[in-house]
Order: sequence, then structure tokens, then C-alpha cells
Amino acid sequence: MADPAAAARGRLIKAPENFITPQGVRAVFDEARAGRRDFIRAAFAAAAAGGAVAARAQSNPVPAEGGDPNILNLPAHTTGLGQPVATDGYGKPSKYEANVQRRQSPGLTQTAQASVSFAPLQSLFGIVTPSGLHFERHHQGWWEVDPSKHRLMVNGSDDRIVKTPQVFTMDEIMRLPSVSRFHFIECGANTGMEWGNVAVPTCQYSHGMLSCSEFTGVPLKLLLDLCGVDLKRGRYVLAEGADGSSMTRTIPMEMVESGEVLVAYGQNGEMLRPENGYPLRLVVPGVQGVSWVKYLRRIEVGDQPYGTKDEVLHYADLMPDGRHRQYSSIQECKSVITTPSGGQVLLDRGFYNISGLAWSGRGKVRRVDVSVDGGATWRAARLQTPVLSKCLTRFNLDWVWDGRPALIQSRATDDTGYVQPTYRQLRAVRGTRSIYHNNAVQTWLVQEGGEVKNVQLS
Amino acid sequence: MADPAAAARGRLIKAPENFITPQGVRAVFDEARAGRRDFIRAAFAAAAAGGAVAARAQSNPVPAEGGDPNILNLPAHTTGLGQPVATDGYGKPSKYEANVQRRQSPGLTQTAQASVSFAPLQSLFGIVTPSGLHFERHHQGWWEVDPSKHRLMVNGSDDRIVKTPQVFTMDEIMRLPSVSRFHFIECGANTGMEWGNVAVPTCQYSHGMLSCSEFTGVPLKLLLDLCGVDLKRGRYVLAEGADGSSMTRTIPMEMVESGEVLVAYGQNGEMLRPENGYPLRLVVPGVQGVSWVKYLRRIEVGDQPYGTKDEVLHYADLMPDGRHRQYSSIQECKSVITTPSGGQVLLDRGFYNISGLAWSGRGKVRRVDVSVDGGATWRAARLQTPVLSKCLTRFNLDWVWDGRPALIQSRATDDTGYVQPTYRQLRAVRGTRSIYHNNAVQTWLVQEGGEVKNVQLS
Repeated sequence: MADPAAAARGRLIKAPENFITPQGVRAVFDEARAGRRDFIRAAFAAAAAGGAVAARAQSNPVPAEGGDPNILNLPAHTTGLGQPVATDGYGKPSKYEANVQRRQSPGLTQTAQASVSFAPLQSLFGIVTPSGLHFERHHQGWWEVDPSKHRLMVNGSDDRIVKTPQVFTMDEIMRLPSVSRFHFIECGANTGMEWGNVAVPTCQYSHGMLSCSEFTGVPLKLLLDLCGVDLKRGRYVLAEGADGSSMTRTIPMEMVESGEVLVAYGQNGEMLRPENGYPLRLVVPGVQGVSWVKYLRRIEVGDQPYGTKDEVLHYADLMPDGRHRQYSSIQECKSVITTPSGGQVLLDRGFYNISGLAWSGRGKVRRVDVSVDGGATWRAARLQTPVLSKCLTRFNLDWVWDGRPALIQSRATDDTGYVQPTYRQLRAVRGTRSIYHNNAVQTWLVQEGGEVKNVQLS
Repeated sequence: MADPAAAARGRLIKAPENFITPQGVRAVFDEARAGRRDFIRAAFAAAAAGGAVAARAQSNPVPAEGGDPNILNLPAHTTGLGQPVATDGYGKPSKYEANVQRRQSPGLTQTAQASVSFAPLQSLFGIVTPSGLHFERHHQGWWEVDPSKHRLMVNGSDDRIVKTPQVFTMDEIMRLPSVSRFHFIECGANTGMEWGNVAVPTCQYSHGMLSCSEFTGVPLKLLLDLCGVDLKRGRYVLAEGADGSSMTRTIPMEMVESGEVLVAYGQNGEMLRPENGYPLRLVVPGVQGVSWVKYLRRIEVGDQPYGTKDEVLHYADLMPDGRHRQYSSIQECKSVITTPSGGQVLLDRGFYNISGLAWSGRGKVRRVDVSVDGGATWRAARLQTPVLSKCLTRFNLDWVWDGRPALIQSRATDDTGYVQPTYRQLRAVRGTRSIYHNNAVQTWLVQEGGEVKNVQLS
């Protein structure tokens, strides 16, 4: 992409970016203001004549054949035979949505195989992320792994910890009792650029290493039970991926014992996508994405944390005193307003639906407060149900924009009572040199002209 | 598709059909039985040597370069650099899932523009249907409707019923307060072939006019309020679509007043797909799919049911006495086991996870009972949470197959106390000549050889 900022600009609130240009929307507004009354009258006249009235509203109607003045200028889709049903098919979004895509941030990493593509949060609704727009983070690229040849091995660091080690085929895993659960996944480095006050232009780039899906799989606890795990000795699990990065992460056994950790093959009703670890990945609800090991090929149970490179050298928090904080893998309570957000443009004063996402790696979101004056005053947002544990929660709040600059923020509280911190509060503890685990309150500045900008309040 | 039955055969329980052939799975089972012990021992020897062990399990490993016996035969995805992250992209399923598709039933209708493609329920997990696999039912084909030109008109059958008729642009609709909700949609003709005991081979064809999504939109009630509706006079709503079929359906105002009926633009996090009515469709929870008018262009409020062709001539139930039952549009409580189901093959005795879907147009599913002996005895299945109103509910139950023929059935009960009927019960009231609203208990026969067949118990 030549210029990501440019691609993100020029969007009306809540509108998919491709079909809405500032010019186009301005034209619709102007047309409506100038001609609404006459337009409606004309439409009713058409209705009375028995015609298909709404089609009259088309600003660029298909010319009627023959030019008969008694024939309404109906669009092709009202008069013609459309496309057939799929005979063998997998559907795609509308061509008018072609610009709603996950996008790589140019220059963020040296190679595109060890990089990130961000989910277009500003264009999404509800809590489910379409699998085709799920964020990507690869350490050595993604693969099409043949599921008929893929295996999962479960073993112990010694014979006493796992009595009967086993190697499972996909078929063996998929005939076991399964569960399906909605969970968010967030990269530990999400919003990482913002530590140093590098305000990236859009919420796709500031918060887009975040997605949410319905995952289906087998509780890891069940597989360990089948292999005869000794839970007194085996207090840590090592998860290992089959791709070239040899991703390895330690999971504390308490998480596995809760039944929440899944060996998952399903995502949003179908098999995992290749970029998300097809055919098998670990799902570790509430924990940063790197622990959700993709192309999962091995689970080892041991009696101490493994301290592998991906947990010692990476995904550790550089503190103000120069030390690294380790094993801070739970994603704390956080939220972001997705509309209006950076790069969008409010084209008119008046009513807007402020909408955003809140989540917590500790449980459920209890409340979300929204400010339009930079935190001076707050109002409670409506939480969309169902509110699920370790899952995105959509919030909405009515707002009438008076045309003056506004600083809009959201602040989430989870059911442990934890309140999302401001940058001032977060930096007092964690400094400014970290990359990971930034869950500070985000501020969007709505400028007088309607342009929305990413800013940080000091 | 040349032979839909052949395409559906040869699947192992719970396994996507493309990568699992009976031959392939049989080979995996045989390999595992014959060599498991030695295989695991070899794997551990490799682990002790510091190698990447799970890769050893590959039945068709990539040859090691140079043939050095100390180098493990690792697959390409463990040694190489994979595919890059998307720069501008919309993801697709794995190539190994290419056979998981919605499919038209050949010969069901005369033209592919007035036809059906069925969702592959036997391959799906959880409750969300991927939008690319959502069932299709078109009356005159589908279209790419330009959202910048699309309009929704709201008017009354006379001036007193709607005081200020309006025409809305997509932008105007999308800046209003929105809600997101999970709901199933089922065609009134789903399972229609089964009235006459025409047992179609798979659950894709018997029950696949069923899907479930998270829908986002504006409550219709809000639009009516904006237009000044008189709710004392205006007791019925007519919804009209913009495509060539001029689909029109009456919705009782009670449903609209409940706040449940949505003018929706979002589906599973993104804009509606073109086949599902992009950019705007009505969502009428619990009601048959034909009322969820696609390409929605007009809402008229009146004081009596409209009795249009699509509700008088079609989607009415032909009763035993020759009369037609009208306005039976709510989808009553129903369920189906999706694994094991028709066309699948159980390749071995032993444990299986019986899994299926239950739903009710009246509210929530309260319980699902499962029988493996044709209804003689029943066990309560586990209901997957969250259990939501007018939404699919996934159920699961453990089962050990002893290799003998089994008749498996599910029977759902909703929170009104209504129990899904048997064919005997349903036909006693409704006869056998209907097309619509068949919610009878489905029976799958697991034959001695493991093949699963669609049967009806008399």
C-alpha cells in the first residue's frame, strides 16, 4: 500500500470506506437538503402511479429503454434477472467493500514473513471479526499445513509427569467432546507504537492487532487426562508450533485446569484459516496472542516455567529502571472507540452513534464510560449483549456534535473492579520505553472541520 | 455439481470433507494401530536427540537434503520461510477445505436465479455460519447494489398513519443508534422435501436452508418513530425489496414494537454480503427467511395485512383438507444432529461426539434430548453457552458406538414448553402435502458398516 494514512482518510462515521468519499457524501447531504421535499413528493407521485418508488431515489438511474415518459427509470437490479445461486461456492464481500481489508504497516518490520497485518476495526460492527479480516502476526510466515499429515504430540518432561505420552491425528482430536466459545485475541504489542507518543493515524494501526471469534476445540485438560498427567508435579505446559519460528510458550497449569485452554480447530463455524494456524492452534483466553501457538504440534508438561526465547527475550516489558518484567501475559482491561476514530471525517453537525470495543483478559467488562471533553466529564455507554468473559464487548452511546473540537475517550472497567488507566497513570509505573501491554485510554480529537485525529493528552 | 450425493459421501464424523477420504482415514487408523507403540518410541528418541519431534510423525516427510541420517526429515513448513502477511488482503479458507461449500440441489428449481444453495451444516462448528457459506434463496437472482445510490423509503398507506414520510440514505441510517444481535434465519421451506418421505441424502440438503449470524442495524421502530408513525392505526408493516422479484411481506406491528425487528446492514462484523441483501435487509427474528426482505427499499405502514402474492400464494401450508394455512410465519422449535449425519461414515467403533443444532422462533432452547435407539430412550445433551433467543444453540453428547445399527435423533424443547414433534405427530395435524414449516424430529440410521443414512420412522 502506497500511503496507508491516505487510504484511511476520507471516511464518514460508521461507513465502509470504499463507497463513501467525502465528495460523495457531501453530494448526498446537499442533495437531501436542497431537494428532499420535492424529491419525496415526486416519489409519492410515482407510488400513486403504481411504480416501484424507492428506485426513483437513484441518483444515477438506468435510462429507460425507448425513453417512454410513462416508464420509470428503474435500475437494472429492479428489472433484470440477477446472479444465480452458488452451485459450488464460497462467497465474498461486495465489490463496494473492496477497501475494507487488513493492512500491513509499511516499514514496521524488515520482512513481510515476520510482520503484522492489522484488522480494520473502524469498519467492523458487533463483536465477531470476519475470519478474512482477522489480524495476522507471523514470525516466519504462514503455511498450508496438510491436516491429514499433521500430528499433535503430548509428552512430559519426564516419564512420571505424563504416564502415557500420545501422538494424536486430527481425526482423533475431532471425534473427542468439543466446546465452542467466543474469545478475543490481542497481540501483546497492540498499541505498542503509542508508548513513545508516536500517534499512528487510525485505529486500524493503533488497535488493530485485535480480533474476536467463536473458537471450537477440545479442552487441553481432556488431552492431558487421556495421557495420564500428574497434576501435582506437572504445573507448566509448553506449547510448540510446527512452523519455522518454532514458537514455544509456557502456560501455567492453573489456566489449563480451569478448562478454558482449548486445542482448537474451528473458528467462526469453519476450520481455522491458514494464517491463524490451520489445522490446530492453542486458544488461551485472556492471554496475549503469542501464547495461542499456531500449527500446534506438541504439548510438553513440566514442573517449572520453560523460559524459552519467545518469553524471555521477547514479549517482556522494559521498565523505567531498565529491568524487564516477564510473564505479564494477561491482557488487562482496555477499550477503544472505533467510530468516530482517527482518519474519519464528520461531514455534518448533529447526531452520531459513538461506538467502540471493550475487553478484559480477567473476565467480563462491567462498564464503559465515554467522555467527549477529554476526560472532564463521563457518561456510561450502553453495553451490547451478550457480555461474555474474555470476549469483545461492543458499546454504543448517543452523541450530538455541535461542530466544535471534541476530545473523545472511552474508559472500561472489568468485573474485578480494574479501571483502564490514563497514559499518565500507566507511564508513572511503566515508563515510555516498553513495546508491550499498553492498555491506556485512547483519545481521538474531532477537529472543527470534522477530521478526526489521534492525539495523546499529557 | 455432477452428483451431490457422491460429493457428500466418504466423510468421517466431524471432519471437513476435502482432506478426509475413507481410504485416507482408514490408513491413519491402521497405521496408528499397527505402529503406534514403535512410532512413539521413535519420536521420543528423536526428541532426546534435540530434534523437532512432532515433525517425525509426518507420514510423507520432505526428504532431507543430502540424505544425512542425522538430519530429521522435516516438512517444508518447519524449515522454510512461509507466506507473507497481507498487504491488502481478504483471507480465504485453506485449500484443503475447498470442498466445504454451499451447494445447489440440481433440479430443485428451473432456473438458478430462483433457487437455493444449501449451507454445509455437517462441516460447521459452533453457532456462527461463515458468511461465505450462508445459505442462499433468491427469487430473481442476486445483485451488487451500489450503496451510495440505495435509498430506504418509509411511508404510510395514508397520511394519518405516517405523518412525515422520509427517504433515508445509507449514511443517514448508519449514523443512527445501532444494535448487534445473534439470530438464526431459516427458510420456511427448509426440510420441505421430507414431507413426502423423499429422504435427501445429507443434512446439507435436508436442513441446510438454515444459517446464523451476528446482525447489526437500526431497530425499525426507531425509523418509524422518526417518521411520526401512529401506532394506534398502523398495525402492519409492508417490507419491499428492490430486486426484480419485488418481494413484499407483511410484518405485524407487535414484532416491530418489541424492538426486535432490525433494518440491518451488518452481518458477522462486516457489511451484508450481496447474496444476503447488501446493503440493507430486514431482520425479523424467529420468522421464516422470506420475511427478511433483501435489498430493502421501502417500508409502508398500514392498518391491515397486505396479503401480497408472496404471502397468499406462497409460503402457505397446504392442509390435509385442501385448505391453506396463512401467516404461519414463525419457525417453531426444531433441531438436527449434524454429526453423525447422512452421507458420513463412522470408520471405527468407539467414542464419538454427537453434535447438532437446535433453535426456536419463539425464544430460547431450554433442552435437547438425544436418542440412539429410534426414540425408545433419551438422554439430555449438553447445551453450549451462550444460549440466546431466536438463535442457534449447539448441543453435544458423548456416545460410544458398539458397531451395531443405531437410529439417532434429537428432540428440542423451547422455553415456552413446546416440544419438537415426531413425523407421526406432525402429519396427524398437517398431512403430507405441505412444502413449508416441517420441524419434525430427524432420524439418521447408522448402518453396521458405519454408513449414515437418512430414514423416516413410521
